[in-house]
Parts: sequence; C-alpha cells; structure tokens
Amino acid sequence: MNDSALQSQTLNLPPIEPTADAWLQTRLRHKIDHKTKPLGALGLLEALALQLGLIQRQESVSLCDPQMVVFAADHGIAAEGVSAYPQAVTVQMVGNMLAGGAAINVFARQHGFALQVVDAGVAAELPAHPQLLQRKIAPGTKNLCREPAMSRLEAQAALTAGMQVVQGLPGNVVAFGEMGIANTSAAALLLARLTGASIEETTGRGTGLDDAQLLHKRGVLTRALTRHPATEPLDVVGELAALGGFEIAMMAGAMLQAASERRVVLVDGFIAGVAALLAQALVPAVQDYMVFCHRSAEIGHRVLLAHLQARPLLALELRLGEGTGALLAWPLLQSAANFLNEMASFESAGVSEK
Amino acid sequence: MNDSALQSQTLNLPPIEPTADAWLQTRLRHKIDHKTKPLGALGLLEALALQLGLIQRQESVSLCDPQMVVFAADHGIAAEGVSAYPQAVTVQMVGNMLAGGAAINVFARQHGFALQVVDAGVAAELPAHPQLLQRKIAPGTKNLCREPAMSRLEAQAALTAGMQVVQGLPGNVVAFGEMGIANTSAAALLLARLTGASIEETTGRGTGLDDAQLLHKRGVLTRALTRHPATEPLDVVGELAALGGFEIAMMAGAMLQAASERRVVLVDGFIAGVAALLAQALVPAVQDYMVFCHRSAEIGHRVLLAHLQARPLLALELRLGEGTGALLAWPLLQSAANFLNEMASFESAGVSEK
Repeated sequence: MNDSALQSQTLNLPPIEPTADAWLQTRLRHKIDHKTKPLGALGLLEALALQLGLIQRQESVSLCDPQMVVFAADHGIAAEGVSAYPQAVTVQMVGNMLAGGAAINVFARQHGFALQVVDAGVAAELPAHPQLLQRKIAPGTKNLCREPAMSRLEAQAALTAGMQVVQGLPGNVVAFGEMGIANTSAAALLLARLTGASIEETTGRGTGLDDAQLLHKRGVLTRALTRHPATEPLDVVGELAALGGFEIAMMAGAMLQAASERRVVLVDGFIAGVAALLAQALVPAVQDYMVFCHRSAEIGHRVLLAHLQARPLLALELRLGEGTGALLAWPLLQSAANFLNEMASFESAGVSEK
Repeated sequence: MNDSALQSQTLNLPPIEPTADAWLQTRLRHKIDHKTKPLGALGLLEALALQLGLIQRQESVSLCDPQMVVFAADHGIAAEGVSAYPQAVTVQMVGNMLAGGAAINVFARQHGFALQVVDAGVAAELPAHPQLLQRKIAPGTKNLCREPAMSRLEAQAALTAGMQVVQGLPGNVVAFGEMGIANTSAAALLLARLTGASIEETTGRGTGLDDAQLLHKRGVLTRALTRHPATEPLDVVGELAALGGFEIAMMAGAMLQAASERRVVLVDGFIAGVAALLAQALVPAVQDYMVFCHRSAEIGHRVLLAHLQARPLLALELRLGEGTGALLAWPLLQSAANFLNEMASFESAGVSEK
C-alpha cells in the first residue's frame, strides 16, 4: 500500500468520481455551439456551462440552495508579527459576520446564499449563535516557527470535521471562505511546500504589510520552512499538520466532501485556493468540481492558479477573503446555466448559420 | 466659434456636468476606508462605489429600474465580405431578441433589466412589437468603400434619435448594446480614425473570421480609410458620417443623454466602446458616467480601453455584443452599492483597526 492509499485509509477520504464523460461532453458542446451566437462568443462562460453540465450529468443545469460556509481559526505564527492586524481581529470579525455587518454578509444577502460560520479553531470562546457551528479543534494553532502548527491527529480531525459540515447542507452549490489573522502565512508555506515555489513567490502583503513588514514576513516564513523539512515522498497530511491552519484543513475536507456529493464547489481567493490545492493533492478528481472564482491581488495566488492550470472568472484586485470573491462570481455561474438552458438555437430561432 | 462649439450648436448636444466633487469624494473615500476590511481590499469595487456615489451625488447609492437598450442596424460594407455571417442575420437576430431567445434576453431576465430593441437602420421592414422602437434612419448604411456611410444630416439625426430614446426611460441605470452584421468594420474604422491606431491594431475577427478572411477585412478597411481622408482638425460628426453605422451613432447620442440626466451608463464591448469613444470625443465629461463592463476578445478593444484609460470589470473572452458583457457585469455594480450602503465600519462593529 503506497503512502497516498495509507493516508486515504486513515482518514476515510470520500470517493470522488471524475466528471469526464465523452458522450455527454459531445452533447453539451453541440448544444452550446448551436446557440444563436458566434462559435465560442460567450468565452469562459461556455467552458463553465460545460463543466456544470458534466458535474450534474445533465444537458441542462439546475443550481439550487447555494450555501456559503466561512471557516475561522487563529494562528500561533501571528505572534511573529506577520500580519498588519492583531490576532483579536479574528474573533471580532466572526462577531461582525454573525451580526451581519461583514462584506460576506452583504454579498450573501445580495445573492441569496445561506451563510454559516464555522469555528474551526478561534483562540477565544464564542457564544452560541444560530449561524455558528462549533467545531473548534484547538484555540489556534501552535507557533509553527517553534513546533508543528498542529498534531497529525488534529489535522485529520479538522479534515474530517470539514467533511461532516458539508454532509448536512442543502442544495447543490457550496462556496467556501475563511477568516483568520495570519492565515496568508500558513497558506504561503503550504503553497511553497506543495508546489516547490519559493517563499518570495508565495508570500505577499496579506491584509496590507508595507515593504519592511513584507521582508520580515518572508524572513520568518523562510526560517519556518527550513525548520520543517519536507518528507520524501510528500506526506500531504504531515505538511498540513506542520505548516497549516485549522480553517484551511477543514475547508479542504469540506471541498472533498462537496465534490463526492457532486456539488459545485466555489473556490474563493488565496487561502481557499491553498485549501483547494491540499484537497487536490489528496484526491485529484476533486478539481473537476471546482470553479475558481477570482484571482486575488495576493501575489502567491498566481503561482497557485498556474500550478492547478486554473483560469479564474474574475480579476478585481480583491484581497479580502471571507469568500467574497466566490460570491461576486456567482452570478456568472447562473448566467452560464441560464444561457445553456434558455437560449434559442439557430434552428429554433430561424437564424442563418455561417 | 470653434469647430467643436459649432458641432454642439448644430446638434444640440445635451450639457453634461463633470462628477468631480472634492468634498464628496473625501467623504466617500473615508466611508469606504472605514468599512470592516483591509484598506483597498475590495479592489476595483471600491473605485466603482466611489464613481457611483459621485454620479448620484450621495454617500449611499441607489440603483433602480435598470434598462437595456439594443440598437440594431445594417452596414453597406457587408457587401465586401467582411463578416462571417450574411447581412440577413441582423434582422433575424432582432426577431430572436423580440422572441426572447437571444443571449441578451437570457441575461436581461436574470438581472431584471427591461429590454428594448431600437431599429436604428435595419435593412428590412420590421413588424410592430411592444419591445421594438422604430427609429430607422435608413435601411442600412451605404457601402463606405464607395461613398460615405451616411450623410452628415443622417449622422446628426441618429445622434438625436439616440438622445430621445433615453429621455423616456425610467430608472437611473442604462446599458447599451447592439446588433449589426459587419459593425466591427465600422467600429474598427472609427477607432483608427479617432485614436490614430492602425487598421491592424483595430481590426479583429468579429464573429469568427479565419486568417485569410481577416487579411481580406483588413485590406478592405485600409482602402476604405484612405478613401475618406481625415479632416484637420478632426470633425467627429463628419467621421461618423463617413465611416460609422446608425446603431453606433444612435448609441453615442443615447450615452450623452443618459449622462446629462446623471444616469449610470453601462458600456458593453467593442462596438459599444466605440460609441463611448465618439460620445467622449463630442462631450468629454460623458466618461464620468460610464462603467466599462468588460474587455472583449475582439482585438481592437484593448486599443480603445487604453486610449480611454479605462479599466474594465470583466475579461471573460466574450465577443458576442448585444450588451451581454454589460449585463454580466451588472451584479458587480450592485455589490459595489451594497457594500457602500450596508457594510459595518470598524467603529460600529467593534473591530480593531491596525
């Protein structure tokens, strides 16, 4: 049994069926190509409509009851001064989300997404709230400059908790977001380790570091990466435990579960992208279900998207996280479904083909 | 009286007030910067919120009753084989729009836009329909390879008709689109003439020309441009008459009127962009009211956006026209308004600033 199989067994990762289906793909392509428009004229929306049809195994697409799940957690590495904001902002922003005042609330209301916040590992006790799921693995990760961010068991528990969060959700579309001061540091480390990119390539200004602070952050992360040498072959769960965060781990598990249930997975920006990368490293077929919603202004996101050969829908210089970019892209998924379902064909409309 | 003033007088172009307002801009910037997010983290949406606030002269934004107006017309230059589709497709696609089957119908329904189609100069009689406005200047332009596309009086009549179309519309947002076989040729010529760019830079594949057909199109347009030498100084209405199209002229007039009424103007892709360029050449302040919704796959659109120093919201490789890119971007305007209006501030939410 190879390492990957061993990991799967230990974790009980859900089985994910690749969406490839040559017959259905031909049918969908034919349907798209005979809509009353020049061939390919709807650009990325055409590839999106094809993907959605393959996910749903249908020639028409029905998107219903979309869900937004925000995973929140704290990071021990915040103590190294790698973020522009104090750690307390994580719990404050969770409170803001539960009160309906954050950007993600605004966009969830606009687009009719049900919103849940998951305490994956916030470094404070959170009072009960109907929109809050208590799934705290620990009150923040350890400072990974000194020790592994979490134990292997904690990493597995976080992945499993993410799977369970999705199991109970209605609908067939899930968007994932996050909140966690210093989580661009964990994400940059995981991205470097999983792709071989340098810390310079994966590490950006996060919530708004200046040049000197960015230099400091890169120094901290370079030392941290050296402190946790890579295993050969790469042990994905081990790397997650050494370098990761609870919200990232839980989101990766949630993505795997969502794909195993053939839900459409909306991937937000840099942090969510690293969770997607982790999920893909564990079960490659998960990527078939992912829509990469936007390219963040955070520099490492380009490396990540290139590694996954993913072309995002939006590039609005966002760097807010929470899932905001996923919700901003959502109407484009609806448009892809709508043109596939509703547009006339050349034949039905009596329009001449070239 | 200079030439520009003479043109304005003859045409009765509507007065357009620049939106610049230093006091309001400071207030809006302050409001945006104190929302619970890192400074600048909503990227292009922040500039958009600022623009919308300045247009509406308010610190909150209210977008209501959005209107979609599609201008349709035929082009004599279609006889030169510059399009992949026969000219009859213009009237067929107008029929498709009035029957509700075109892409623009799908997206208008999705986003709650009222849709009107304006016959600006289709080369066929169109039966009456509640969504059709009969404003035909002539049944298609003349073949501009042999003579001016239209007379100066026709160009002025088209601009004026466009203004009148907008006068009766409800709401404070208008999106403009077009349908007209061969209209990328007219647009490429006007773009070359108004910006000094070469035909190679402004002329693309339109609805899907292959390499040989593109070469032919560029040859035709190069000869056409030589046939109509530029005036010095540039006479915008004269150039429009020589090289333009009725839908482009009418759309330019409509944009001017919309801006004069302080409506938000949604600019679609390449053809609509050339109408915007014309409008801007006639009354520069019109651009304050324009949101450039997307960058088309049509090659000349890059030249145009660079000339206007406009950064579009979307880049989805669309090349369909009709106004589709404008409607696909619409939810982003709503998101900009919503975050400005609804998001909590650091103070109101009790979140620490850095």
